[in-house]
Amino acid sequence: MIVILKKNIKQEDVEKLTAQIQTKGVIVNPVIGTEISVLGLVGDTSKIDPSNIEASEIVERVMKVQEPFKKANRMFHPEDTIVDVNGIKIGGKKIAMIAGPCSVESEEQIIGIANEVKECGANFLRGGAFKPRTSPYAFQGLKYEGLELLKKAREKTGLPIVTEIMSPYDIEVFNDNVDVIQVGARNMQNFDLLKELGKIDKPILLKRGLSATIEEWLMSAEYIMSGGNENIILCERGIRTFETYTRNTLDLSAIPAVKKLSHLPVVVDPSHATGKYWMVEPLAKAAIAIGADGLIIEVHNDPANALCDGPQSIKPSKYKKIFEELKVIANAVGREI
Amino acid sequence: MIVILKKNIKQEDVEKLTAQIQTKGVIVNPVIGTEISVLGLVGDTSKIDPSNIEASEIVERVMKVQEPFKKANRMFHPEDTIVDVNGIKIGGKKIAMIAGPCSVESEEQIIGIANEVKECGANFLRGGAFKPRTSPYAFQGLKYEGLELLKKAREKTGLPIVTEIMSPYDIEVFNDNVDVIQVGARNMQNFDLLKELGKIDKPILLKRGLSATIEEWLMSAEYIMSGGNENIILCERGIRTFETYTRNTLDLSAIPAVKKLSHLPVVVDPSHATGKYWMVEPLAKAAIAIGADGLIIEVHNDPANALCDGPQSIKPSKYKKIFEELKVIANAVGREI
Amino acid sequence: MIVILKKNIKQEDVEKLTAQIQTKGVIVNPVIGTEISVLGLVGDTSKIDPSNIEASEIVERVMKVQEPFKKANRMFHPEDTIVDVNGIKIGGKKIAMIAGPCSVESEEQIIGIANEVKECGANFLRGGAFKPRTSPYAFQGLKYEGLELLKKAREKTGLPIVTEIMSPYDIEVFNDNVDVIQVGARNMQNFDLLKELGKIDKPILLKRGLSATIEEWLMSAEYIMSGGNENIILCERGIRTFETYTRNTLDLSAIPAVKKLSHLPVVVDPSHATGKYWMVEPLAKAAIAIGADGLIIEVHNDPANALCDGPQSIKPSKYKKIFEELKVIANAVGREI
Amino acid sequence: MIVILKKNIKQEDVEKLTAQIQTKGVIVNPVIGTEISVLGLVGDTSKIDPSNIEASEIVERVMKVQEPFKKANRMFHPEDTIVDVNGIKIGGKKIAMIAGPCSVESEEQIIGIANEVKECGANFLRGGAFKPRTSPYAFQGLKYEGLELLKKAREKTGLPIVTEIMSPYDIEVFNDNVDVIQVGARNMQNFDLLKELGKIDKPILLKRGLSATIEEWLMSAEYIMSGGNENIILCERGIRTFETYTRNTLDLSAIPAVKKLSHLPVVVDPSHATGKYWMVEPLAKAAIAIGADGLIIEVHNDPANALCDGPQSIKPSKYKKIFEELKVIANAVGREI
Repeated sequence: MIVILKKNIKQEDVEKLTAQIQTKGVIVNPVIGTEISVLGLVGDTSKIDPSNIEASEIVERVMKVQEPFKKANRMFHPEDTIVDVNGIKIGGKKIAMIAGPCSVESEEQIIGIANEVKECGANFLRGGAFKPRTSPYAFQGLKYEGLELLKKAREKTGLPIVTEIMSPYDIEVFNDNVDVIQVGARNMQNFDLLKELGKIDKPILLKRGLSATIEEWLMSAEYIMSGGNENIILCERGIRTFETYTRNTLDLSAIPAVKKLSHLPVVVDPSHATGKYWMVEPLAKAAIAIGADGLIIEVHNDPANALCDGPQSIKPSKYKKIFEELKVIANAVGREI
Repeated sequence: MIVILKKNIKQEDVEKLTAQIQTKGVIVNPVIGTEISVLGLVGDTSKIDPSNIEASEIVERVMKVQEPFKKANRMFHPEDTIVDVNGIKIGGKKIAMIAGPCSVESEEQIIGIANEVKECGANFLRGGAFKPRTSPYAFQGLKYEGLELLKKAREKTGLPIVTEIMSPYDIEVFNDNVDVIQVGARNMQNFDLLKELGKIDKPILLKRGLSATIEEWLMSAEYIMSGGNENIILCERGIRTFETYTRNTLDLSAIPAVKKLSHLPVVVDPSHATGKYWMVEPLAKAAIAIGADGLIIEVHNDPANALCDGPQSIKPSKYKKIFEELKVIANAVGREI
Repeated sequence: MIVILKKNIKQEDVEKLTAQIQTKGVIVNPVIGTEISVLGLVGDTSKIDPSNIEASEIVERVMKVQEPFKKANRMFHPEDTIVDVNGIKIGGKKIAMIAGPCSVESEEQIIGIANEVKECGANFLRGGAFKPRTSPYAFQGLKYEGLELLKKAREKTGLPIVTEIMSPYDIEVFNDNVDVIQVGARNMQNFDLLKELGKIDKPILLKRGLSATIEEWLMSAEYIMSGGNENIILCERGIRTFETYTRNTLDLSAIPAVKKLSHLPVVVDPSHATGKYWMVEPLAKAAIAIGADGLIIEVHNDPANALCDGPQSIKPSKYKKIFEELKVIANAVGREI
Repeated sequence: MIVILKKNIKQEDVEKLTAQIQTKGVIVNPVIGTEISVLGLVGDTSKIDPSNIEASEIVERVMKVQEPFKKANRMFHPEDTIVDVNGIKIGGKKIAMIAGPCSVESEEQIIGIANEVKECGANFLRGGAFKPRTSPYAFQGLKYEGLELLKKAREKTGLPIVTEIMSPYDIEVFNDNVDVIQVGARNMQNFDLLKELGKIDKPILLKRGLSATIEEWLMSAEYIMSGGNENIILCERGIRTFETYTRNTLDLSAIPAVKKLSHLPVVVDPSHATGKYWMVEPLAKAAIAIGADGLIIEVHNDPANALCDGPQSIKPSKYKKIFEELKVIANAVGREI
């Protein structure tokens, strides 16, 4: 961290600030020039809040040199993290293909779709039991009954299940029953939930918040990791911008960015990104080409009657076709599906 | 709600869709022209998810005519809601002046500041005990001890206390001990927390999410209200935009917008909006001029040593000066401080 | 400007970079610590492009300490600039009240409105002759005929006229005929137009671009000023954000920001900011309270039949009422209308 | 276009509005229900400004059913447009590979780079002669001398040249000397320039504005096309969002969106999108996978000494490597490079 000092300040004020910063466990190197003076902070600066230093009257500006995350930082963990879910890996050469309906609606529906996506080659089943809905009057999911249906689908197909948690009260039941716990975009900075998830060791699929910077997203991963759970899978699902033609704007640049900054695997959700079923295929192809470690795609047997997100769901037959085409792209970039 | 149908569709498909929509408890008026056909939905459309209807293959587009919130809607509740906090009103002619430090740091600090802001004329004390921080390594607040210190400050000054909740686990203790429960921007769509807050009748200060539209913000209020708690105070605190000179962009247009759409009181937080102490005064003036029902301002006796948000805090002496100037603006728009 | 160097770099590379930067006319102070090394650049850094230095392989990051604008910079011109338009001042104690229709439609219309706003107390007439429209099929303005009608209105009322230029071809005719030349939001970075406007000395009203940062906006002012024309009036008119309830989001924080960074006067356009006539009044009040030097408001005698922007125009009777209320706010902040 | 009327309005007002709208050359079908009344507008609605109708006191809201562009609209021109540049096609099976430096710096530089990118397989040379720079003090390009150097490079290599125009004054010289005229992001809504470009028949590469919606971008294409020049190549180059890690956010979803809405070819500029050279490769791959018709990539022999945009330029050796890898992706999606 570099602290740029104002001009014409007193030596004693510099010393006071230096002493104050050193109490936080870093070494302060003052480099005082005739025209420009800076303090160079060396050591673990992750505990230092730049805005605290900026509140000092002799400080012009503070500049971070190092990223504020540690456990998620590739600098301290150069090799890729590969998350193991019941023996299936996310983050290695093989791309994770996660598919299923927006929400679990009935036993017939979820088992039917699970069978179909498995046949296409998917290796994970997704499906919402607890649904975060903008309106309190919208369908909120089958809840615990939904979890039971997901378990039945897993039993029938062997596919590990990925589903979203909404409350810390449910961590125990999720830990006991699901294979990957999803944290939705709206809860990316629900810090109390993140802290609780740090105490278990179940894989967590952490979606990027609608207006979260890449750094904030990695800091949320850091919250879970600093608690002890390092099984994090990141998920890019579109950010909020001024463009309204698509529901969100899929930020595919975030994939190489995250790969450079962090060692964590990252998957892409092309269904939520735009809200349009006909965009799933081209976005899925682009995601694989750019280096994503997996795809989470909404597949529904009857999109027009889906209880939620019908317009962005594709039919199993379409999924099958996409799946085959993605294999070719994966090979072209040295990966496998 | 207006459903615009595609061209050249079959009569039977229209009838099927009509029947399907009517199961949701609304009356469907088909208006079929030679070139344009629409279905007009009349009744309580708040339970209808437009995207579900858009998933139908014969639908071109769906357009909402009515806002999706009911309890928060001024149409069904024309007069202004006035929230009563221990006899002090928020939402009437008199403007609520909420002040205090970003976080409670010590007994001396919080009581000292409470005394000073009370002397200036503030009628509420704010102070964070549980702090949502982007970094897990940053100061997370004094937690329950912080609540106790706030209570001591209330005892000394008589000022009702406003503080942020982060977990549904803490609702009981907050309900028993604080006067206004704040829901922070990052938890605006923590729907499980909102639902729990709907079960108590403590006033809730609901901050707007960083990238929440005005409609989403009111839908979050609706979550709490639909549970039974109608004591909601909205709080605009800046949205995330491309501009980086200010930390957020205070959306003052949201004040008249909310006043038109809803009957709920709305206050403004000029401190978090920009992250710059010297902008607090002009933004506070603008907020009063535009019709805000209150101001929540960070005041700290020693900003340079504050444990958080020093750069946006003002000193008590500055608060006193602003307070006097705001009285004049309030009078100019027919309000009182 | 501070250049932060990477670790473990060769002394000769540092010397090479230092020499290279010095050719641009600044003094380079190398401050080499054991852990952190920086180059402090002193002198006129406005000609240095930070991204050029960042392209060097030994550079970690570059940080600007000084703003990149000079002529627009308050640091080098501490007192407020007051622009004189035919004897009427913009930027002093008295607030400029600019009013008129979106576009000039006919002699009767423009003279009628000019008379009405003058009667209310407005001191400038606005009206578009050349209209920037998103669609090539929309009304594009009366063009040169519109300018003639504006001149007639000026003749009748004595009000100086403010109107938008769209092409460098028209600079001569604008210079000869109008009193303040407006550069619209879409042309804020039409650098060739800005350069041409720098060669005349007519006052320029420079609107902020839809997605322009405050710094970019001031850099556009700098383009004109560096050419020799320092008669710039800035105009905040809303920025593009994710919120769609209002057409744009009025960034009132930009007013104190610009006042701190620059000495130029700044006015606010509450009509274009939201696209809603009923928001003009509250936003205008907030703009005066926050310190704007003027207001540019769309007034039309028959909004429902206006050839453009009807929904954001107010009637003269409403303008009269707002005008009186604004006087009170102006007094409350030590200004005059 | 659908006009939704307010409730309880008078029949005569409806008739008046109907008559008023019909004067604009469309047929109005009133569909009056007991609870909901709408006017369906049939015919060429592109000349109707929805906001004009919304200004009527009996109108609740106006909804466009059809896109407002005609010549650029795929509905009226189902087959893909293929732009022919001196015999080289943009928009067909073969992907256009446009490469070269940000700005032309010298004869040696531009001819050297032209030779190198040609050898890699590029089929167009790009290079800026007139540079739009945020700062008036930054290098503004070699201007007419730069054009001459581009012509020499074309002579040596046979590569058609693509370069940016900034002023309508230069249209004649550009028309006579360059092969594709680029309109930069900042001039996307410089409507006077667009109109002038509609009068020639030179291919135009139209970059998307920093905060332009997809619809606005296509409307800018419509401006040129409505003047008679239908040789438009669209170019996505990143939009402005809250994320600052990348300079802009490349909106790859815009490629399938544009392909659905329009018949025009669309290329991607991965260099300007992020401002980071190491992101060019992954973004280029994603762009091809998603269906772009070409890539415009900044290649410089000495990025660290480039006069502009060094950090986003790649060296010819890197370009060669990317080129080969892109061929494989192109084949995987049924295209050719």
